[in-house]
Parts: sequence; C-alpha cells; structure tokens
Amino acid sequence: MNSKLENLWEEVRELSLGTTPQIDRLHTPPTPLQFLRHYLSQNKPFILSASAATTLQWPATTLWTSTSYLLNTLSSSTVSLHLTPTGQADSLTAHPSNPDSLCFASAHVQRAPFSDAIHAIKASRKDSNKGFVAYAQQQNDCFREEYGALAGDCDSDISWATEAIGGLPEAVNLWIGNDLSETSFHKDHYENLYAVVTGEKHFLLLPPTDVHRMYIREYPAAQYVYSEETEEFELKLENPTRHVPWCSVNPYSLPKEKKKEMTKFPLYYNGPKPFEVIVKAGEILYLPSMWFHHVRQTADNRELTIAVNYWYDMQFDIKYAYFNFLQSLTCCKSHSHALNGGESFTNEDVFDGDENLREELNGC
Amino acid sequence: MNSKLENLWEEVRELSLGTTPQIDRLHTPPTPLQFLRHYLSQNKPFILSASAATTLQWPATTLWTSTSYLLNTLSSSTVSLHLTPTGQADSLTAHPSNPDSLCFASAHVQRAPFSDAIHAIKASRKDSNKGFVAYAQQQNDCFREEYGALAGDCDSDISWATEAIGGLPEAVNLWIGNDLSETSFHKDHYENLYAVVTGEKHFLLLPPTDVHRMYIREYPAAQYVYSEETEEFELKLENPTRHVPWCSVNPYSLPKEKKKEMTKFPLYYNGPKPFEVIVKAGEILYLPSMWFHHVRQTADNRELTIAVNYWYDMQFDIKYAYFNFLQSLTCCKSHSHALNGGESFTNEDVFDGDENLREELNGC
Repeated sequence: MNSKLENLWEEVRELSLGTTPQIDRLHTPPTPLQFLRHYLSQNKPFILSASAATTLQWPATTLWTSTSYLLNTLSSSTVSLHLTPTGQADSLTAHPSNPDSLCFASAHVQRAPFSDAIHAIKASRKDSNKGFVAYAQQQNDCFREEYGALAGDCDSDISWATEAIGGLPEAVNLWIGNDLSETSFHKDHYENLYAVVTGEKHFLLLPPTDVHRMYIREYPAAQYVYSEETEEFELKLENPTRHVPWCSVNPYSLPKEKKKEMTKFPLYYNGPKPFEVIVKAGEILYLPSMWFHHVRQTADNRELTIAVNYWYDMQFDIKYAYFNFLQSLTCCKSHSHALNGGESFTNEDVFDGDENLREELNGC
Repeated sequence: MNSKLENLWEEVRELSLGTTPQIDRLHTPPTPLQFLRHYLSQNKPFILSASAATTLQWPATTLWTSTSYLLNTLSSSTVSLHLTPTGQADSLTAHPSNPDSLCFASAHVQRAPFSDAIHAIKASRKDSNKGFVAYAQQQNDCFREEYGALAGDCDSDISWATEAIGGLPEAVNLWIGNDLSETSFHKDHYENLYAVVTGEKHFLLLPPTDVHRMYIREYPAAQYVYSEETEEFELKLENPTRHVPWCSVNPYSLPKEKKKEMTKFPLYYNGPKPFEVIVKAGEILYLPSMWFHHVRQTADNRELTIAVNYWYDMQFDIKYAYFNFLQSLTCCKSHSHALNGGESFTNEDVFDGDENLREELNGC
C-alpha cells in the first residue's frame, strides 16, 4: 500500500475533517465570515440543522407536501424526465456488446408535461423486465427554468453563501425522485448547497485528496433508449465512440460481488471510511467543490424525495492545482513500486482519463 | 525535468497567482470577506498601497523617523541583538571544520540596552576581518514584549485580518536593521502581515507548490559566538549535533559561483521566476502561510530599516495536507525517472530533511 498517499488521506482527516465518518453539524447558520473561514477555505463539509436553516420558513416546506399543489402550479410546465431500467443514471453498467466489460450509461431523457413526470416517478419499478425508474432532474439551472412556477416557494439563494462567495448561484437545480434513484460517485466543479424539502438524501462523501481511491478510469459512453411501445430499454453506445472518465467504485455492490469489488478496489475498501451524511427535510448540506459524492434517497409518505441544490462558482486556486497534480500521479511499474510499496498498482488500477497521460505512462 | 511538478508550478500561476513576477496591488484595504475570499483562502499574496493601509496614520510613521525619539522612549529597554559577520543569520555558510560542506549558522544573540543596539546597527560593517552586522529582531512577539514602550505607536493588529481570521495576532515582531542584513529563503507556519515603517524590504516569494525548487536539505546546526575582546566571530557546531532542514538556494550568489549554483539547483533557476515585491514605508505585504520568502532591505537616510510584522495563526487544513504530501515526494533512482523525465534527480537533489524518509528512500 502506498504509504505517502495513505498519509495524505489520514492527515487531512486528523488535521481538518475529523477521523469519524461524521461531518460537522451546525445548529446556527454560519456568518459569511465563518462559512469562508472554517468551511469554504478549508474545503470542509458541514450540515446545517433544520432548526438553523431558513428552509423551514420556505413556502415549499409545507406547499410541496401536497402533490396536487405541485400539479396545479406546474400544470402548464414541461420538464426533463430521466428514465433508466434500475434507477442508476450516469453510472457504470455492462457493456451492451461485451458483457464482461463496462460502459458509462446515461439516462433516456425526455421532455414531459409535469403531470406525466410525477405519474412516471410514482409508477417507477426497478429490476423488472418491463419497467423503468423515472427521476425528474436536469442539472442546467432547471429550478429557475423548467420549474420557474415554483421559484417563489424557496429562497432564490442561500444568503450567507452568496455574501461569502460574493455572487449569486450559477445554477439552481430541482430533484424529484423516489428511493429507487441513485447517483454514482462523482465530483462537481461547484460549491454546492444542498437543501432537502421532503424525504431524505443519503450521501457518501470522500475528499478530493482521496482521488486514487475512486479508481477513475475511462469508459465508453452509452445511452439508454426507452421504447414506450415495447416498454423496454436498449443501451446504445455513442457513435462515434466517446470515453468518459468515471469513478469505478460502487459502494453498494451486491453481496455476491462484494469480494470481487474489494479485490479490485483495495484503496477504497481498505482506506478510511467515507463520511456518511443523511440530509433530512429542512436540512442543508454544504458539499465542497471537488468532493466525491454518492447519493441515495428515501422517500416521504407519498413515495417522493424533493431537493433543491444551489451551485456556486468555485475558485480555481492552489487547492485545485494541488488536486490536479495529485490526480496526475499515476503509475508505471517502476513508479508503482516507489508509490505503492510494491503492490500491483498499474495504469489499469489508477487512471485519470487523460489520453496524453496514458501515453506518458505507457512510455515510462 | 519533471513534467508533472512543472505543470503544478505553472498551473497555480495560470489559475491564481498570475504569470508575471508581480503580485496583486490593492489601492483600498480589503474587507474581511474580500481578504478571506480572494487571498487567505487561495493562499495568495498581495501588497496594500501606503495610501490604502492605515499605517500612514500610525504615530510610528512620523515618530520613528527620529532616532532620538526611539532612544528616549526605549531608554530603559533591553532588547535582543543578533550579530553576524556578514548580515546573514539563519543561513548556510561554510562548515567550520570542513570548508567543502555547509552548515546552518545562527546569529550570536545578546541582550543589550536599546541605545547600544542602535549604536551597533549603525556601526555595522560587512565582509571585514574584524567587524559585525547587527540586527535587532527576535521572532518571539518582541514588539509587545521588549519594545512594549513603542506599542502605542502602531495598531495592535490589522483590523481586517483580525476580523477575517477571527482572532488577534499570535505574535507581533519588530525588525530594526540596515541594508547589510539579509534573511535566507524559508517559510513560516503563520499568516503574515508585514508593515514597513521606514526604509524598504525586498522580498522574493515562491508558493508552497514550488517546494522542490528550494532543495531543502538537512544541515548541521552551528552558532556564531562573538568576542568583544578580539572583535572576532567563532562558528561553533552545536554539541550534540543537531540537523536543520533548510533551503539550499541562495538567489543572490556571487557572480563567480552563479554557474555552479545553476548546475546544483536547476529546478530553481530553470523554473518560473520568483515573485518580486518591494515593500515601501507605509505599505503592507500579505505573505501567506507556507510561502518561501527571501528578504533584503534598503535603509532610510539614517541607515535604518524598521518594520513590524503581525503573525496570525494559520489553518492546518487540506492545503497543508497537500503541501506535506507534495514535500514527501522525493526520489529514488527508479522513481526519479518517472517523476523527472530521466534527469538526475536523486536524494541529494531533493531531500526534505526527515530522517525516516531518508531511510525510506534509501530503501527503495
């Protein structure tokens, strides 16, 4: 095992993040200075209790528990609906023509009247031959666009974050799903304030220092295509072929696959546990830029989970430069020995998805 | 040359610091939020113009130009005076018993009435067989201790920094010297606000990402001992032997030594130029934690340079963990090839001064 990388993972926890899988919980909202000083500057997450967040005062908190309110308010809205066979969009699945390898599968996305979208989400079924899981989400500022009719029900920004960062959110996104939808490990280039309105979101978090533990590799991009006629999905590779760098680790693999996964991804399974955060209705998670996150959800008594997240621009500063350097440290045989204490830690094990780098590594 | 390290040096400049040797110059003082957002969080220096700093309103700005004011006010004060043969304290010099190697030499420090100290500073001569360079400085909060009688002449803290950081300075230090005194490349574990009162300070700055360019190695510690009787210095090795990790690069080596220095320290000489900052009377430099800095000075018309610096506690956060990881990346032969494109980049070239690490490297 690479002792220097391990030291990094441990040190960032010992110095800053804490050595348990819990993150800071705040019971009063931070001032802009406190947010900058203790969290944003340090790239450190926290959760803000419902009693301290202003979310409980949002009209959304009460209004959105009524599906008929949503249906009435959005009666003339068309929204983006993501359909997958299992609830896993933007995730790795068996390659359509070579089941021994994996591809990166995106959802079938269709525009639908909101009433159809809600019907589809509630009708979602998983793991059946005929069926789908529907998730209303589009990370393109959809809350202020497609769902503009609801915009008055939430704060347009998180005031202490706006003041600290010195600008309004770049995008505000709405997420309506149920407990079948899951988002695989990935990172975003934004400072993220994530507010849950109904239901719960379950996050697994790893700091950017742990990038090698995610086994980011390149996978061929594919897309689900759903036929309403046959009620079946077809998974189509993109043509021309495009490769997407993506995290290889599935933290909730099936029990029968767990042992194989642990062998394939020892840095993930043998290293420090990810931070676990359950964000309940009314709570806000500060998810710092570049943190890896995996998201599952539990639904409210209507079988819905609804959340709004605010993406603020991140600073591309020394932290980002350090991250890119860290990620560039991949291995050839001779290098792997120094970095990895002799374990088999090859291009295949840690690969950052850059073609030039792949060549550089193969050449060394 | 190691392309990945080079990429890091370049990227932090392209993204954040700028690609010229100049740092940001502010003409209005930052608000605490601006200081945190744009500088402290990003580990990025700036200089505050005299017109914007409140230093010009300090009584010190006028009072300290009068040596008799200083003598009167400090007539009963005893201060710490650092004596060296050449003005270079805490710097590398020829080993006393093996002139082909170097040691880390500290100044002869003596307590002296302030009037004697000023006399010694003004009487300083360099590079003579008999003579000394005197520098009144002690980085132990001396401004609030030894020089307490002057404390009312300057602000007790830098208000926007105090509010941003959320606490008062850990130490405030006074520096009285002339243009013979020089401080070799080093870094401090503090956020540093450096205010010049009379004369000028000339800084060379390198960000923490450039740590390998400093060629930090371990040197045996030694101390100058000055005899008033013979007016000569003796350089004595500490007994028992103690090793100090120190930057090997002297950016102002003698012309006859320059070529050899460039061969010994190619990463310094072939990489991006250091940031150059002249801090004039009334100006304040924000020198971020962990930045390498080399300091020379020019004197006022009395042959004095006087400065006050405020050390605030730094956060030991993800940036610090990244730095430690970066610094831990040293080289053995096989590793050096991957990291360094095949150049001779050995333990001797980059060594971080940790005995365990030295063993780890020798073993790989």
